[in-house]
Amino acid sequence: MSPLAPKPPAPRPLALTMGDPAGVGPEIIFKAWTQLRDSGPPFVVVGDVQSMASVSGAGMRAVRRVTSPKEALGVFPNALPVLDLPLRCPVVAGKPSSAAAPAIIGWIETAVGLALSGAVSGVVTAPISKAPLYEAGFGFPGHTEFLGELTAGARFEGARGPIMMLAVPGLRTTLVTVHEPLSKVGALLSVERIVHAGLVTAQSLVRDFGIAAPRLAIAGFNPHAGEDGTIGREDAEIIAPAVEALRAQGVAATGPSPADSLFHPTAREKYDAVVCMYHDQALIPVKMLDFWGGVNLTLGLPIVRTSPDHGTAFDIAGRGLARPDSLIAAIRAAEEIAANRAA
Amino acid sequence: MSPLAPKPPAPRPLALTMGDPAGVGPEIIFKAWTQLRDSGPPFVVVGDVQSMASVSGAGMRAVRRVTSPKEALGVFPNALPVLDLPLRCPVVAGKPSSAAAPAIIGWIETAVGLALSGAVSGVVTAPISKAPLYEAGFGFPGHTEFLGELTAGARFEGARGPIMMLAVPGLRTTLVTVHEPLSKVGALLSVERIVHAGLVTAQSLVRDFGIAAPRLAIAGFNPHAGEDGTIGREDAEIIAPAVEALRAQGVAATGPSPADSLFHPTAREKYDAVVCMYHDQALIPVKMLDFWGGVNLTLGLPIVRTSPDHGTAFDIAGRGLARPDSLIAAIRAAEEIAANRAA
Repeated sequence: MSPLAPKPPAPRPLALTMGDPAGVGPEIIFKAWTQLRDSGPPFVVVGDVQSMASVSGAGMRAVRRVTSPKEALGVFPNALPVLDLPLRCPVVAGKPSSAAAPAIIGWIETAVGLALSGAVSGVVTAPISKAPLYEAGFGFPGHTEFLGELTAGARFEGARGPIMMLAVPGLRTTLVTVHEPLSKVGALLSVERIVHAGLVTAQSLVRDFGIAAPRLAIAGFNPHAGEDGTIGREDAEIIAPAVEALRAQGVAATGPSPADSLFHPTAREKYDAVVCMYHDQALIPVKMLDFWGGVNLTLGLPIVRTSPDHGTAFDIAGRGLARPDSLIAAIRAAEEIAANRAA
Repeated sequence: MSPLAPKPPAPRPLALTMGDPAGVGPEIIFKAWTQLRDSGPPFVVVGDVQSMASVSGAGMRAVRRVTSPKEALGVFPNALPVLDLPLRCPVVAGKPSSAAAPAIIGWIETAVGLALSGAVSGVVTAPISKAPLYEAGFGFPGHTEFLGELTAGARFEGARGPIMMLAVPGLRTTLVTVHEPLSKVGALLSVERIVHAGLVTAQSLVRDFGIAAPRLAIAGFNPHAGEDGTIGREDAEIIAPAVEALRAQGVAATGPSPADSLFHPTAREKYDAVVCMYHDQALIPVKMLDFWGGVNLTLGLPIVRTSPDHGTAFDIAGRGLARPDSLIAAIRAAEEIAANRAA
C-alpha cells in the first residue's frame, strides 16, 4: 500500500430498506444476500423479519434478527441480518395495502437515520409503490424527494440534490425532469434547473466516482437539438445558456447535443455523464445497454443512496421470478460511492 | 429454383439523386460506387456530371454521361453513370447556395418520374438542406413530403404514406411525428394519425419486407407509458384506442409500451417494427445500434424510396471525410424492397 493511501474506513454495513412487502423487494433482497454473503458488500435489512423469513425457503433459519448494524457484520456470512421493525398486519405478495404504509415509511426513516449517524455506510432502497403510500397520507412523489427532506438538516458541502442518476456500465445519465408528462417538460426546463442538475452531477462525479476532471454532455431537447432554433425554442433559449453558465462556473460541459448522437459507443467515450432533459431520453439508452442491471443513484445528498431501477412488480411478486441483478448492482454502487466518500 | 418462384424482374438500375452539391452527397455517392461497382446494385446518378467528376479523384475518367437508365447498367462496372442535368452556376463544397435549388429540385423530379415510368427500380436520395431550398421558394418540409406530392397522382393499393421509417439491422422504427418541437408532439397525436402510421407500416412490412404476418409494437409517449393515466393523458386517451383500432382492422399491434422497455435485444425479438411517437424516441435506439449505417425509408408511396439517415454535413463536405455506410445501406435497402415489390 502506498504511504499516501488513505486509511481504510472502519467496516460498516449498508442498510437495505425492505420496500413494499407485497412487491418483489423481500425476494430480491434474499437472492442478493445468497449471492453476496461470501464476498460482500455486507448489508443489514431494515424491515420485517417474518416477511424475509417467508421468502428464504428455510424460514427463520436463513434470517437473523439483529439489534445493530455492527452486529449485522458478523451475522452476514451465515444468515441474512434484519433490523426488525415488524409489520402490524399480514401482507400478501402481489396485494399492496395502505395498512403497510407506516412500516414502509418507518424503515426508510430508520435507514436514513442510521446513515446520518454513520452507523451504516449508505442506504439501498427496495422498490415502493406510490398508490398505497398516498392512501396513507405520504406526501412525496417518491423515495428521492422523501430522502431529500429527511436529510435536509444535515451538513453537505457543494451543490445539493436530490438529483437522480441512472447508470449502467458504460453510461451515467442524470435527469433534469423525471416523472413528468412529456408535453409539460418544455415548460419545466429553466437555465437554473439545468445548471443545478449539472453542478450536482459534476460534483458527484468527483466526490462519488473519483473522477478528478469530469466531462458533462448536456442533451438537447428537440429533434437535432432544435436545428439552430428552427425546431422548438428550448435548445437555443434555455439549454445553450445553461451550458454557458456551467462553463462559466468551471464545469467542462458541452451541448446542447442532439440526443440521438449522444449514446453510441464512440460518443460515450467523450463524457463521464449526460444530463438528460426527460425520463425516456435517459432510460431508453440505459435500458438498451443493460436491461436488468441499471442502478438508480441519488446525487447531492449528505448520505449515500442507491436503488434498483425497477418497481415493485406486483404482477410477479412472490413467485420467485424477479431477478436481483439491479439490486445487486445498486448494492455494489453504494459500496463504491461510500468508499470514495470515505477516502 | 422452385417452380413457384416468381420470374425475376428485368434488370433496372436505381436512380440516385445527387442532393445538395455543396454537401457530402457527391463524395459519398462516388465512394458508394467504388464499393458497389462490381457487386451492384447498379445505379445511375441524377445530377451534375462536373460535380461528380470533381470528387472522383480522376476527373471525368471515372464518370460517364448516360442518356438513359438502361445505358447506365452497362456503364456501371466501368464508370459512374450520370444522367447529367447540369448546375447553372459553380458550387463550392461547404457553401450552400439557393442558386443551386432549381437543379436540386429538378433532379428529384426527374428521378421520381423515372421511377413512376418504371425505367428505374427505385429512388435513393442524397441529402438536401432546407434553408437554400426555402430561399428559392421550395414549399415542403423535406424530401418525404415532396415525394408524396410528386407521386400523388399514381395508383397505389392500400394505406398511402408517406410514412418515414428509420432502420438498422435488428430494428425498424416508423414515426408518427418527425421534425416537430417536442413540446408540440402531444397535441399533434391523434387516434387517426397513429392508426394511419400503423396501417402503412404493417402493409409495408408485408409488401416491402416480405413479412407475411407482421407484428407492430406501438410506443408509449409519457414515462412508463403514462403509468395508468397518472403521468400525462396521451397514452390512455389516444395511443391505447389507436392500438385497439389497429387490432380491429386485423393488425397484430401491441402497446402502448413504455419506450424504455422496447429496445433491448429481448424486446426487439417480439416485433417487426415499432411505431414511435416522436423523432428521438426512434432515433436514439436506431443510432445506438448502428450510428453510421441507418437507413431512412419512405413507406406507402407508389415508388421505392430510401435515403441515408444523415444530412448534408456542410462542415466536412469536400474533405473526403464523409462515410458512405448509410448511403450504401440505403442503396441495398432500395434494391431489396424493389425486388420484394416486383416478386
